[in-house]
Amino acid sequence: MEFIEGGSVLTPNGFRVGSSSCGLKRSEGADDIAILTGDSELSGAGVFTRNAFAAAPVLWCRSVLPTDSLRAIVVNSGNANACTGAQGMENAGRMAKIAAELSGCKAEQVAVASTGIIGRPLPMDRVTEGIKEAYATLASENTAARKAEKAILTTDTRPKSCAARLECTGGSVSIGAMAKGSGMIAPDMATMLAFITTDISAGARALKDILSYCAGETFNRISVDGDTSTNDSVFLAASGKSGISLEDPGVRDKFIDAIYRITRELAMQIVADGEGATRVIRVHACGCGNKAEAVKVARAISNSSLVKCAAYGADPNWGRIVCAAGYSGAKFDPEDVDLFLGKVRVVQKGLPTGYDASEEMQKERIEIKICLGAGDGQATFWTCDMSERYVQINAS
Amino acid sequence: MEFIEGGSVLTPNGFRVGSSSCGLKRSEGADDIAILTGDSELSGAGVFTRNAFAAAPVLWCRSVLPTDSLRAIVVNSGNANACTGAQGMENAGRMAKIAAELSGCKAEQVAVASTGIIGRPLPMDRVTEGIKEAYATLASENTAARKAEKAILTTDTRPKSCAARLECTGGSVSIGAMAKGSGMIAPDMATMLAFITTDISAGARALKDILSYCAGETFNRISVDGDTSTNDSVFLAASGKSGISLEDPGVRDKFIDAIYRITRELAMQIVADGEGATRVIRVHACGCGNKAEAVKVARAISNSSLVKCAAYGADPNWGRIVCAAGYSGAKFDPEDVDLFLGKVRVVQKGLPTGYDASEEMQKERIEIKICLGAGDGQATFWTCDMSERYVQINAS
Repeated sequence: MEFIEGGSVLTPNGFRVGSSSCGLKRSEGADDIAILTGDSELSGAGVFTRNAFAAAPVLWCRSVLPTDSLRAIVVNSGNANACTGAQGMENAGRMAKIAAELSGCKAEQVAVASTGIIGRPLPMDRVTEGIKEAYATLASENTAARKAEKAILTTDTRPKSCAARLECTGGSVSIGAMAKGSGMIAPDMATMLAFITTDISAGARALKDILSYCAGETFNRISVDGDTSTNDSVFLAASGKSGISLEDPGVRDKFIDAIYRITRELAMQIVADGEGATRVIRVHACGCGNKAEAVKVARAISNSSLVKCAAYGADPNWGRIVCAAGYSGAKFDPEDVDLFLGKVRVVQKGLPTGYDASEEMQKERIEIKICLGAGDGQATFWTCDMSERYVQINAS
Repeated sequence: MEFIEGGSVLTPNGFRVGSSSCGLKRSEGADDIAILTGDSELSGAGVFTRNAFAAAPVLWCRSVLPTDSLRAIVVNSGNANACTGAQGMENAGRMAKIAAELSGCKAEQVAVASTGIIGRPLPMDRVTEGIKEAYATLASENTAARKAEKAILTTDTRPKSCAARLECTGGSVSIGAMAKGSGMIAPDMATMLAFITTDISAGARALKDILSYCAGETFNRISVDGDTSTNDSVFLAASGKSGISLEDPGVRDKFIDAIYRITRELAMQIVADGEGATRVIRVHACGCGNKAEAVKVARAISNSSLVKCAAYGADPNWGRIVCAAGYSGAKFDPEDVDLFLGKVRVVQKGLPTGYDASEEMQKERIEIKICLGAGDGQATFWTCDMSERYVQINAS
């Protein structure tokens, strides 16, 4: 596959996008409603937060997805419709119903996503108007997608999107994507939403499996299993307009790889836009007893406030990294541990080498690699550094 | 029991303390060696870090404690003797041996604790001189304890100590304590060391059980199980000089309660001295399925950077608190959850009440209470807020 410069969720055929402003966001006049529709029925699947306080739109989507007759996804920013009880459930259903009427389908053929403040009822009068206005702007030009990319943002400092093309025997498949999310530098994060479109022909169940796998390896490697917010949602919708089927010979593996790379790209964009972030950190744990152990180690290092602060200060503080590995719960012998910062081996067989890794810590992208010498398990996490700005953003 | 204003580790009979400077700390001339000895053999027990990278002094202590013939504990600050391999083990043993020669006992009768920078060999010439000099200052006056309380500090902004008296039939038992530790506002913390003395008569095994229980309910409720640094150590030493035995009728329960309150007091002092901390936060989870579930919930809330930042900004952001409970892994129905900030019920049956808790968040000590309505399990954690100063301290 190859990434398409300037592509969007409208790069694949068979989709239209609209957006509007209904006054949910603090910044006056900013768009806060986005609609993604299929020209005809779509296969659609979603992966959602595991938070016990899952928001109303998540509960709605869990009840309607996966489906082979998806017509639209309605999104609002500025209000999460979370911790809103029975009224919240009713409002999520009403959002779907309004969109369904405009699409000429059933409410069950519409998915809903919300992000923003928790615990406030949605002002349904305004939301209803907003959805109608967004429908009036539906278009298949890239400019419509660019507008929608902004409409879904909250504390993000920039839109996040990418697109790719996959050459297959008999034609090509396109994939487009947009996402929001920025407060993810801590184990508890602001909501992450991602919308992926494709013109492959595939069943919703198959899409769900592929999306679950890829989200697990990418979004869950930044947001950490189980540490998801009330609203986190990732959607994958397929129009079938390319004429290429997931079942065609040789297509499935290519398509899975492409979705993996698309989700990884979005995950990286989200990490890079972490609140107050100045550097991206890649944490690779290898030589672990098994994959679960590797995940523990990489997660503990990625979640360590001390490691993140050291990265902000460009401090090659390997002690904090091995300490985090030490309390991760993974089993290993300290005397077998090697640690690299970039290309510099700072710990060998559990002992400091004395090599200076200061330069590696001054890079915009820091590479941490720890090898436990306990097996073949490996895992990669991405995180970012922690600055005073993070505290300022979250204290105010 | 009652706390004794101005008491110290020398409040109980049968102990002497000394300290000296051997140049391990950055601040020139500051004391960095402390010695605690018994006038005769002590019962001694310790509770230690579960970090896989346990430091050499921890490994030494695990091999010699508990013991009914403890004579001394040697402590140095400025160098953790962690990630120092075989040489580190030899040095920990040599520290014990030097002290043993001065005490006229075997090395196995001496416990060792270190705190400071990781991965640097101890300069044993200077440490040897330092231990000798500290021995020359051994005294049983409170001023000696005050000096030792400073000698064990690293990034702490103030010494931490307390003492208490326990009236029993036939006399009274005294307990004294000192501790260090300040970087504990994140799940990964600077080293925590605590030394508790008492003149009760008790076997080392019994002391170990009591200390394990109390540390689990206090120090592990701030530092979080398994998230301990390479060097964390808590010691309890008993001289027997009070003439009161743990086995005397009615003494055991009183003594356990006293040690619990002493360790809780030290834990609170450590939290209050958290790096950059401006407020202490008490997190009480109740109505949980069982105690383990309550620990999960209280820990998730205590470790949340977003909750800590909100506390710093005096922001009654209940959404972040229920979100942390939601991803803690505990099982409950959101519709049964109540949340209190101080005396104000901000969430009832999973829905915001709309009551204003701003005043509660402006207090020096913030009380968070969450009730899941899922059972009888409860647990309390203590943490502190997160300020820009935390990042500054840990980035430089």
